[in-house]
Amino acid sequence: MISFENDYSEGCAPEILAALARTNLEQLSGYGEDSYSLRAKEKIRAAIQAPKADIYFIGGGTETNQLAIDSMLEPWQGVLSAVTGHINVHEAGAIEFTGHKVLPLPAQQGKVNVADVKGYIDTFYGDASHEHEVFPGMLYISQPTEYGTLYSKSELEQLSACCRKNEIPLYIDGARLAYALASKENDVSLCDIARLADAFYIGGTKCGALIGEALVFPAGNAPSHFVNRIKRHGDLLAKGRLTGIQFDTLFTDNLYCKLGEHGIAQAEKIKALFAKAGVQFFINSPTNQQFVVLENERLKKLAQQVKFSFWEKYDETHTVVRFASSWATSDSQIAQLESLIAN
Amino acid sequence: MISFENDYSEGCAPEILAALARTNLEQLSGYGEDSYSLRAKEKIRAAIQAPKADIYFIGGGTETNQLAIDSMLEPWQGVLSAVTGHINVHEAGAIEFTGHKVLPLPAQQGKVNVADVKGYIDTFYGDASHEHEVFPGMLYISQPTEYGTLYSKSELEQLSACCRKNEIPLYIDGARLAYALASKENDVSLCDIARLADAFYIGGTKCGALIGEALVFPAGNAPSHFVNRIKRHGDLLAKGRLTGIQFDTLFTDNLYCKLGEHGIAQAEKIKALFAKAGVQFFINSPTNQQFVVLENERLKKLAQQVKFSFWEKYDETHTVVRFASSWATSDSQIAQLESLIAN
Amino acid sequence: MISFENDYSEGCAPEILAALARTNLEQLSGYGEDSYSLRAKEKIRAAIQAPKADIYFIGGGTETNQLAIDSMLEPWQGVLSAVTGHINVHEAGAIEFTGHKVLPLPAQQGKVNVADVKGYIDTFYGDASHEHEVFPGMLYISQPTEYGTLYSKSELEQLSACCRKNEIPLYIDGARLAYALASKENDVSLCDIARLADAFYIGGTKCGALIGEALVFPAGNAPSHFVNRIKRHGDLLAKGRLTGIQFDTLFTDNLYCKLGEHGIAQAEKIKALFAKAGVQFFINSPTNQQFVVLENERLKKLAQQVKFSFWEKYDETHTVVRFASSWATSDSQIAQLESLIAN
Amino acid sequence: MISFENDYSEGCAPEILAALARTNLEQLSGYGEDSYSLRAKEKIRAAIQAPKADIYFIGGGTETNQLAIDSMLEPWQGVLSAVTGHINVHEAGAIEFTGHKVLPLPAQQGKVNVADVKGYIDTFYGDASHEHEVFPGMLYISQPTEYGTLYSKSELEQLSACCRKNEIPLYIDGARLAYALASKENDVSLCDIARLADAFYIGGTKCGALIGEALVFPAGNAPSHFVNRIKRHGDLLAKGRLTGIQFDTLFTDNLYCKLGEHGIAQAEKIKALFAKAGVQFFINSPTNQQFVVLENERLKKLAQQVKFSFWEKYDETHTVVRFASSWATSDSQIAQLESLIAN
Repeated sequence: MISFENDYSEGCAPEILAALARTNLEQLSGYGEDSYSLRAKEKIRAAIQAPKADIYFIGGGTETNQLAIDSMLEPWQGVLSAVTGHINVHEAGAIEFTGHKVLPLPAQQGKVNVADVKGYIDTFYGDASHEHEVFPGMLYISQPTEYGTLYSKSELEQLSACCRKNEIPLYIDGARLAYALASKENDVSLCDIARLADAFYIGGTKCGALIGEALVFPAGNAPSHFVNRIKRHGDLLAKGRLTGIQFDTLFTDNLYCKLGEHGIAQAEKIKALFAKAGVQFFINSPTNQQFVVLENERLKKLAQQVKFSFWEKYDETHTVVRFASSWATSDSQIAQLESLIAN
Repeated sequence: MISFENDYSEGCAPEILAALARTNLEQLSGYGEDSYSLRAKEKIRAAIQAPKADIYFIGGGTETNQLAIDSMLEPWQGVLSAVTGHINVHEAGAIEFTGHKVLPLPAQQGKVNVADVKGYIDTFYGDASHEHEVFPGMLYISQPTEYGTLYSKSELEQLSACCRKNEIPLYIDGARLAYALASKENDVSLCDIARLADAFYIGGTKCGALIGEALVFPAGNAPSHFVNRIKRHGDLLAKGRLTGIQFDTLFTDNLYCKLGEHGIAQAEKIKALFAKAGVQFFINSPTNQQFVVLENERLKKLAQQVKFSFWEKYDETHTVVRFASSWATSDSQIAQLESLIAN
Repeated sequence: MISFENDYSEGCAPEILAALARTNLEQLSGYGEDSYSLRAKEKIRAAIQAPKADIYFIGGGTETNQLAIDSMLEPWQGVLSAVTGHINVHEAGAIEFTGHKVLPLPAQQGKVNVADVKGYIDTFYGDASHEHEVFPGMLYISQPTEYGTLYSKSELEQLSACCRKNEIPLYIDGARLAYALASKENDVSLCDIARLADAFYIGGTKCGALIGEALVFPAGNAPSHFVNRIKRHGDLLAKGRLTGIQFDTLFTDNLYCKLGEHGIAQAEKIKALFAKAGVQFFINSPTNQQFVVLENERLKKLAQQVKFSFWEKYDETHTVVRFASSWATSDSQIAQLESLIAN
Repeated sequence: MISFENDYSEGCAPEILAALARTNLEQLSGYGEDSYSLRAKEKIRAAIQAPKADIYFIGGGTETNQLAIDSMLEPWQGVLSAVTGHINVHEAGAIEFTGHKVLPLPAQQGKVNVADVKGYIDTFYGDASHEHEVFPGMLYISQPTEYGTLYSKSELEQLSACCRKNEIPLYIDGARLAYALASKENDVSLCDIARLADAFYIGGTKCGALIGEALVFPAGNAPSHFVNRIKRHGDLLAKGRLTGIQFDTLFTDNLYCKLGEHGIAQAEKIKALFAKAGVQFFINSPTNQQFVVLENERLKKLAQQVKFSFWEKYDETHTVVRFASSWATSDSQIAQLESLIAN
C-alpha cells in the first residue's frame, strides 16, 4: 500500500547511501571531529553566509529542540511558542523534562504573531512582581510550521527585531526546512534565516537524510561547553561521521535544495488532485504537508488503499487528514493517488 | 596513518550497508514500528531465548544508560557502579542530569565484587536512618568492562543472586558485548546474560553498526510507557528503520558474533606483538582493548605513525595507553603495527 | 499605613505563639517525629474523619505543590490545572523544575469545569498516537481559587467522580482553606474534601500559622518513601516541632475554623463598604479576597493611605485591585478603611 | 529522658521568641521584603564586614545547599566535596536532584586537603578529553565539619587561594558555624569566612533559631534573579519575617556568638566527663559534637537513660556514638550525664 503518511517513510537520498558506502572503511575520529563533519560545517557556513557559525549535528528533532532550548534558557526562563508548536504538543514534555516551561502564544494556522509576542513581553514586564513568574526567555517558531504554513521574510524580520529589542533569542525549528525553501510562496532564504535567527536547525531526517539535524548558532554564539552539554543530554554520537557525511552530501551540489524542490513539486500535484476532486482544504498549505477535510465514509474507503495521517475531527461527519509528500515521493505514487481519489 | 584509537573508527559491516541500500525506498512506519525493527526484535528474542523480552533500539550508549537507569530507578534510589564505571566517569554527568546519584563501589580492574555489593547494601540497611540517604536501587556493570576485563558466569550468577535477593535490578552495559562473547576466556552466553540481568543492552555502535544499541528487558519488564519515556528523553528516532535494519542484519547468520570474533582474533595478534616486543601489559585483557605500559620516548615516536588512546600516567617515565581492535581491523593494519613495534 | 495587601502580613495566632513558648525547652525528636507533630496528625485525622490518612507538614505552599505533584505523577504525565491556577502562573515554573508539564484548562472565575476536564481526557485518549504527548496525570484545583471563588460540593463530587473514573488523582490546593470553610456560601466540609480528594493540603501560612502547610493523603496513599522524597526536594525541616506545634494548636478547640470565620466576617464588612460606596466588584467573591474595580485616580489616592494588591488592568481608566482580609484583620482597620473609602 | 542526640532538640533562644511575640501583629511585607529582614541583612553585613553582601534567608540547610550549589554551578560542572560531606551522604541526593554530580575527595576527619583539591583539578585538566567528564565547578566544605573538626585560617586561606586560582567558587556550609566560631581551637573569624569564601551560610536551625539559614554572597555576587531561583526551587517563604526577625535577633548584642559559646562550654564539660571516665575518643573534636567509642554493653545500658546518636560500627564489640551539646544544653543535663557515665 502506498503511503503519504509522513515525510520520513523512506530511507535516504541515494547520494547519501553512496557516500556512506564510499567512505565506510576510512578510519575517522569520533564525536564529530572527523573530516567529513568538519567539511560539512564549512559547506553549511558558506551556504548560510555565516563564516563564524557554530554547528553541531544532532540525532533527531526532539533532542535538538531539547538541547538548544535548555542550553539557551537561563534557569528563570521559559520558551514562548505557538500553542500548536511541536514542543508544546508532540514532544512528550521533553522541554519540561529539562526544567523549563513552554509559554503558549495564540497560533494562527500554526504561526505566531509579532503583536502577541510583544504583548506577552510587555504585559509580563508591566507587572512589577514578575520574580514569581517564568520569564519569557526565547521565542520558538517552526519554518514551515506544523500546519505547513510559512513565515514571510517580513514576518521573520519583525519577529527577529522584536526578540532582539527584548534581548531574547529567536530559535527556528527547521525540521522540514528544505520544503520551506523550495515553496513557491517562500521569500526567505537560508541566509535570511541565519541573519534573523539566533539559533536554528536544518532538518535532515524529514528532508532526505537517514538521521540527523544540523543545529546552527550563526553568530558563533553556541552556549559554552556545548559538546559537554550534548554528552550530558546523552546525545553525542560516537560515530559522528554518520551525520557528518550526510550533511556533507546534502550540502554538495545543492542536494538539500533539490530534495526540497522535488517534495514541493509532488505536493503541488497532490494539491491539484484534491482541488480537482472538489475536496475542501483545511489549510492552504504552500509546503509538503497538505491538510484536507474528508467526509468520514470516503476517509474509511481511502484508508484501505493509501496511508495518510489523522489530524483532527472536523465535525460529526468530516475529519481533517494530512497527506505528506517528500523528497522520495514518486510520480507513480502520485498516479496511484490520483486514481484512488478519482474513484 | 593507521589507527587503533578505538572501536568506532570505521563505518559499519558491509552487510549492513547492503541492507540499508536494499530497503532504502521501501515505505515503512516510523518510530520503531517498521517491519525490520519488529523482525530484529524477534531475532534477538530467539538469540537470547527470552520470548517475552521487551526490546528498544536506542541511538547511543550514553542515552541508553541514561534512559534505562532513569526509568528503572525510583526517585529515592541511586545506581551502584564500579568507581571506574563509564557512567561514573565518562558520561559528563548524564545520570545525575536525570536526578539520580551514582553510588561508587571499589573496582578491581574495572569489575565489582559481590562482597562489596552485599556489604554496601547491608551497611545501608543496617543504619536505621537511611531515609536521609540515597537508596541503592540497581547495580550497573559493564561486560566487558571499561578495562577490557570479563565477568565469569559464576561471578555474574553471584551478582545476579545478590541483586535479586535484595530486590534491585542488575543492569549490564554491553557496549562491546560482541567482543566479550567472542573472547577465549568467556564462559557467559547471551542467554546467560538474558537470564541473569534484569536489563542489558547489546552494543551496536562499537560492534559493527553505524549507530544503535538494543536495550533489552528480558522478562518483558520494561518500565511502563517506555516509548513515551524515550520520546521525553529526546531519544526516539523518527526513522526507527535505521536501527531496526541494522540489528536485523546483525542477528542474521550470526553476524554479530562473527564481527566480535574478528575483533578478538585481531586483538590476540596485537597482544602477541606487544608480548614479543617485551612490552609490559597494564592489564591482562581478554577482549578487544589492550592496555600496555609504554616508555614515554617510545610512546612519542610511535604516536607519529599510529593512533592509539592515552589512558593514564603510569609513573614519571611511563604511560598506560590503549590499542583497540574491532570488527574492522585488517591484517594489513596488524602488519603495519608489527613493523612499527619492531623498530 | 494599614494594609489589606494580603493574608500573610501578620505573624500568627496568639495561641500558636503561646504554644511555642510553652514547649520551647522540651527536647523533641527531629524531622517530624516529635510528639506534637504526631498528635497534630491525629487531630487532623479526626477532624477529616480519615483515620488512615498520611500527613506531612511542609514549609510553604509552593514546595507543597511541587512535592505533591512531582510525587504523584508518573514520568509520562502532566498536571491539569485552570490556566489561572497558581501552579501555572505564580510559582516561577516550580512544577516544570521537577520535569512535569502543567496542562492548562479553561478557567471560569478561577474554576475548572468538569466538562472541560472530561473533554480534555477524552480527546487525549481519542487520539491513538498519544505516546508522543504528555498524559493528563492528575487534576489540580484550589479551594478557594486564586479569585476567591468556591467549588460547591456538587461540583467537587463531579470532578472527583470524573478523576476516579479516569484513574487520575484529584489534588486540592488549600492555601486559604480556612476561609473557604468559613464562607457563608460554602457547603463543602473538611470531611468532604478528604472524601473527594486523593490529596490536598490544609493551608497554615495564610490562615494564622507562622509557617507550614499540612499535606494530606486521606486514604493513607502517600507515595512510597515520602520522607526521603521530602528530603531530596530539600524540604525536610530539622525542627519539625515548629510546624507540628502549630498544627496541634490550630486543630485544638476548633482554632483553624475560628480563624477562618474571623477572616470571613471582616471580608463581609469590606464587601459591604465597597458596595455602599458604589464600587464595582470584579468578581463576586464569597471568601477573604475581594476584587474591586477602581477608577485610576481614586486608586492613586487610596494607595497613599492603605495597601492593597494590583491585580490587572481593567480598561484605560480603571484597574482591578484586591483587598484581602485575614484571621488578623481588626475592627479598627476596617473602620479606617471605611473612612478612606467614604472620602 | 535527657538527650544529647543532636543540636536541634529544643525550640529557640528565648530572645527570639520574645521578638516574635513583640512584632507579631505588625503588618509587614512578604517574601523577605519586610523591615526586619532588611535590618538583619544590614547587621550581618556589618558583622562580616562585607557591605555589598547579598544575603537570603532560607528555611533549612539542605535546601540552602541545594539552591546555592545548583545556582553557582554551570550545567557542565559538579561540586567537589569530602567523601564524608553532608551533601554526599546525608541529603538524599538533593544535589543530584538538581542535575549535578558530587565529586568526592578524600576526607581526613571530615576535612579536605588543598593538595587533593589541586590534584583533582590538575589531573582533570591534564586529560585532554575532559568534555566527556563532569568539570570540577566549585568546592564545598563544612565549618565545622560533619565530624566536629575545624579548618584553620591557614587551611582556609590555602583552599580559597587554590579555588580562586582555578576560578571556581569556595562554598562553606556553616550549619553549626556558631560552634566553630566559639571553639577554643578556632582562629577563623566571620570576617575571614566572608573574605575567603565566595558563598557560605550562617546556620540558624542548629545554633538557636527555630528555622532558617542565612545564605551569604559576600561580594554581592549572588547569581542573577536569585529570588526567582528560590521560588522555582519552592523555597521562598511568604512570611519572610519569620527568618528575618530571628536573624535580626541573633545578630543583636552578639547573641549568635553567645549561643555558640554556651554550646562549646557544655561540650568541653562533656569531653571532660568522658575523658575522666577513660572513654576513648573517636575524634578529638573541638566543637559541639563529641564522638566517643563505647563498648557495646555499656552503650546499651546508657541508651536506656540518655539519648545520643549512633555514628558507626567501630569493631565487633565497640561502636562510635555522638553526643551533641547546643546553645540549650543545661548544667543540670550535664550533671545527669555525669552520673550516668560514672555508673
